[in-house]
Amino acid sequence: MKTNKIFRILAALALTIATPIASFASNATVNGLAPGIINDQRYNRAIHIMAMLLVGFGFLMVFVRKYGRSALTATFLLVSTSIPIYIFAKGMGFLGDHVSEEIDKLIFAEFGAASLLIAAGAVLGRLKMPQYILLGILFIIFYMFNEWVVLGGGLGLISAGTVIDTGGSIVIHAFGAIFGLGVALTMTTKQEFEKTIETDANSDRFSMLGSMMLWIFWPSFCAALVTPDQMPHTVVNVIIALCGSTIATYLFSVSLRKKVSIADIANAALAGGVAIGSTCADASHTVALIIGILAGGLSTFGFAVIQSKQQKWMKLIDTCGVTNLHGLPGLMGGLAALPVIHGLNMGSQLSGIGITIVIAIFAGIITGKILPIMGRKSEAYEDADEFLDAE
Amino acid sequence: MKTNKIFRILAALALTIATPIASFASNATVNGLAPGIINDQRYNRAIHIMAMLLVGFGFLMVFVRKYGRSALTATFLLVSTSIPIYIFAKGMGFLGDHVSEEIDKLIFAEFGAASLLIAAGAVLGRLKMPQYILLGILFIIFYMFNEWVVLGGGLGLISAGTVIDTGGSIVIHAFGAIFGLGVALTMTTKQEFEKTIETDANSDRFSMLGSMMLWIFWPSFCAALVTPDQMPHTVVNVIIALCGSTIATYLFSVSLRKKVSIADIANAALAGGVAIGSTCADASHTVALIIGILAGGLSTFGFAVIQSKQQKWMKLIDTCGVTNLHGLPGLMGGLAALPVIHGLNMGSQLSGIGITIVIAIFAGIITGKILPIMGRKSEAYEDADEFLDAE
Amino acid sequence: MKTNKIFRILAALALTIATPIASFASNATVNGLAPGIINDQRYNRAIHIMAMLLVGFGFLMVFVRKYGRSALTATFLLVSTSIPIYIFAKGMGFLGDHVSEEIDKLIFAEFGAASLLIAAGAVLGRLKMPQYILLGILFIIFYMFNEWVVLGGGLGLISAGTVIDTGGSIVIHAFGAIFGLGVALTMTTKQEFEKTIETDANSDRFSMLGSMMLWIFWPSFCAALVTPDQMPHTVVNVIIALCGSTIATYLFSVSLRKKVSIADIANAALAGGVAIGSTCADASHTVALIIGILAGGLSTFGFAVIQSKQQKWMKLIDTCGVTNLHGLPGLMGGLAALPVIHGLNMGSQLSGIGITIVIAIFAGIITGKILPIMGRKSEAYEDADEFLDAE
Repeated sequence: MKTNKIFRILAALALTIATPIASFASNATVNGLAPGIINDQRYNRAIHIMAMLLVGFGFLMVFVRKYGRSALTATFLLVSTSIPIYIFAKGMGFLGDHVSEEIDKLIFAEFGAASLLIAAGAVLGRLKMPQYILLGILFIIFYMFNEWVVLGGGLGLISAGTVIDTGGSIVIHAFGAIFGLGVALTMTTKQEFEKTIETDANSDRFSMLGSMMLWIFWPSFCAALVTPDQMPHTVVNVIIALCGSTIATYLFSVSLRKKVSIADIANAALAGGVAIGSTCADASHTVALIIGILAGGLSTFGFAVIQSKQQKWMKLIDTCGVTNLHGLPGLMGGLAALPVIHGLNMGSQLSGIGITIVIAIFAGIITGKILPIMGRKSEAYEDADEFLDAE
Repeated sequence: MKTNKIFRILAALALTIATPIASFASNATVNGLAPGIINDQRYNRAIHIMAMLLVGFGFLMVFVRKYGRSALTATFLLVSTSIPIYIFAKGMGFLGDHVSEEIDKLIFAEFGAASLLIAAGAVLGRLKMPQYILLGILFIIFYMFNEWVVLGGGLGLISAGTVIDTGGSIVIHAFGAIFGLGVALTMTTKQEFEKTIETDANSDRFSMLGSMMLWIFWPSFCAALVTPDQMPHTVVNVIIALCGSTIATYLFSVSLRKKVSIADIANAALAGGVAIGSTCADASHTVALIIGILAGGLSTFGFAVIQSKQQKWMKLIDTCGVTNLHGLPGLMGGLAALPVIHGLNMGSQLSGIGITIVIAIFAGIITGKILPIMGRKSEAYEDADEFLDAE
Repeated sequence: MKTNKIFRILAALALTIATPIASFASNATVNGLAPGIINDQRYNRAIHIMAMLLVGFGFLMVFVRKYGRSALTATFLLVSTSIPIYIFAKGMGFLGDHVSEEIDKLIFAEFGAASLLIAAGAVLGRLKMPQYILLGILFIIFYMFNEWVVLGGGLGLISAGTVIDTGGSIVIHAFGAIFGLGVALTMTTKQEFEKTIETDANSDRFSMLGSMMLWIFWPSFCAALVTPDQMPHTVVNVIIALCGSTIATYLFSVSLRKKVSIADIANAALAGGVAIGSTCADASHTVALIIGILAGGLSTFGFAVIQSKQQKWMKLIDTCGVTNLHGLPGLMGGLAALPVIHGLNMGSQLSGIGITIVIAIFAGIITGKILPIMGRKSEAYEDADEFLDAE
């Protein structure tokens, strides 16, 4: 397999810029609480995030027709590839050994896996199983690079800690969505473009299960690494933002389409969680509600109106509509920090957003050039292509 | 929309009786543990409760035929309406700003949402989506009023803290069920009465998923606000009561019906959790087991024998049978405190139960008169009425 | 019913050897943290384990054709029977009152329920509901006996605390699987052997839900009772082992079968969790990855190659393939301690494994002789045999 070779080249390239940098994650003792307490608090959030990764993202992606087994297996493979690579790479000092606590390292690895699942959503149904593994390997390297540059002061472009992105609107959601678009841009075939991905109406309840699992545990995602003092305000903000986007999604969906689309509900209801990411520890509850409502409206508008135009204009298929759920609300969330957070370094925040967009699009395009090495099919895959006894 | 007007009238009415009352919730430091520790312990339970609200109640209600999308979307809307209203209203000092900690406020809001979902279960399938939002607004105001009167010393009827209802048998379960009956009493049409709600046999596994999610996290619901010292005994009591009601449900279902009804299992197995609510921190494990067995038997008897008689007698349809799962076991749980808890103020406990019944029935009837302002349909709704591409 | 009589005989027999033995579980204060903190940390893991028991095991077993209601109801009954018996028996000093904290007692009871569900998986579809209850009663007594002998120093065979089995590779997984084989050995009828259990292709997504729930919460299972200092390393080891077995399962499934079997993915992906059980607190991350990969490969090889041979050779049907998921990886995990753990008492470890095998097989065979007292059917059960309105 050529994968090994590519991986070795990329690893060599990346290791040349790997240096131990100053810690930007927390020390173990936080707000005067012992490590045995802090670690356990974070551990519970790490498990909540794992539920989001597997059941949340996995089942949200089950809506593609005759692709349920593939979507769930791909989720398993993407998570199982990316998390150990992140943990082992950090353990070897790759791109700054900035995380001293094991649980914190696990949470950062899960953040990477979340971003990867978002990226994969853009090309879902158009990769075969071994390509998801290769996608996981390539993605996580680029993701770590962007994380290091934007949050860790890598390459000296942005001072470490000056970009505010507590819950990852920018480096997780927007990065993953734009990376996915980059891959889709390169890989979308003419046949796929003519014959859009069919959805499976019977899977609506499974998709809603995935959506609800994401909704439920989203506060733990955003508050995973905040201090105990900040936690209560942060989690209530996230819940209020999600409530706002859920109500807004219903109202926009019924207004724009006459009848409600269950896909809008399952997806855009979560946009409040995406958009509150950067400011969740700092916004007031009222501002959180407003951000949530705007994000739900924006995302539903994206699904109902922008998506079909985008496909024609950009000549690409975004299978799960990650542009609308993670891309636009993620950028909105990153920009929301400008008016909301007092004392923000605006230059850093804008640079962080800009650099993330640039790295994500280039990395996605490069990955989209590499993946077809393992083969490509002109039409979408079905379970029967790779699974026994599939319908 | 007339909703706004009604909301304003009710809000004005309620605000006239809003006064800051003495705290009945905990101070932050409990059993000598710092706020950063207590808040996190309660946060985990708040997330567990959220899993109950969305996946638990949502999927338990998926059994109505061709109404899966509607039931899940209604769950989303009910939760997203009631939680922010509760949090913002308490923040503004509405009906006593008795909760100082944000996480505690969130848990109280979730309790209100749970009670609302119970109430909605009684009329499930007979409201359209915007009516669920209006139901959420109206319900949460009445719920807060009852909570304030029964637990918070509101109107001076019952001394604050003298009604024992740790896990909400009375103010959450019985209140929600009776409120729902009140709405159903007013709203049940002749056509609905003649043509009962059809169930969807294929949804049995989804219903069991909802049921199991409620079962799993029920200990966190009951122990959400107890002290760390009380927690272990409380949660083991809840689990033992649920085990008792689960076994009893199987035995009663097979005895009363010859064959087992999966609806009995999915619903009545939870009755132990409902009935142990008032006494979960105080009962012995043996008493918890007895309460669980009795509640499971009572609830199964309700579903198998009482429900059809109740519908004829009261001339109403209780879609999800909330009378049997939450109403009767809830009242039983509240009354169980009389023999079980030493030093109980029996007058207060009985008054609390009585007042809850009265407020719930009147509030439900009023709400049942208001909801049809937004329209009404003589027959049950189906997904296809409001959702795109529904079967 | 004869069940009562049998239960009384067994209880009497067992009580003769019941003596209070020295504590082998933790004291409340661990690593200098107060009981109110330790109990809450363990409580969260107890709830995670409950999610594994009900949704995890329950839905993983839904794959048998027309047996979904039965599998889920059986799960409910098995859990509800075994947990209270364990807790009340320990409370009465049965086989050593070694657990002082209530939450620890709950976790030990859940471990027993997990082992019981594994055992039941071997004979799933061939018991009727009341027989699952009887199975639960008989199993939990034998399980407590083995636990007492292997971990608690019972009968003086092995010094307490010298067998290393933190996450239960030996006493939970291997014991349950071998016990189940013992029951299957006695109970498999000729008809069942000729007509294998049919699987339900439509249930693949429910099985994957069960599998993912087990995967997500497995770290809490293994780390339930470790000290706060050990927790971070332990949980990361478990996650790395699961990632390893997930990737290995995909690679072995596609290699051995040409196309991927979704049943392999749903089951063997978990083998890393089973096999890391004994050494999870001690192995390095690299060793954890190796154990996970080997376990995933072994388990997939078991499902793809060994299972059909085993059925012919042993003349038994193992419905869920517990031999391959829990039996072989469990034994492998127990043996992995020999090279991995420094200062291990090898004699104790090997004795623990050997005694577990002997007790499990005899207990299973005895149970397989007792269960048919309540009747037996020559062919597999379907939902319609015991449930109303089933297909």
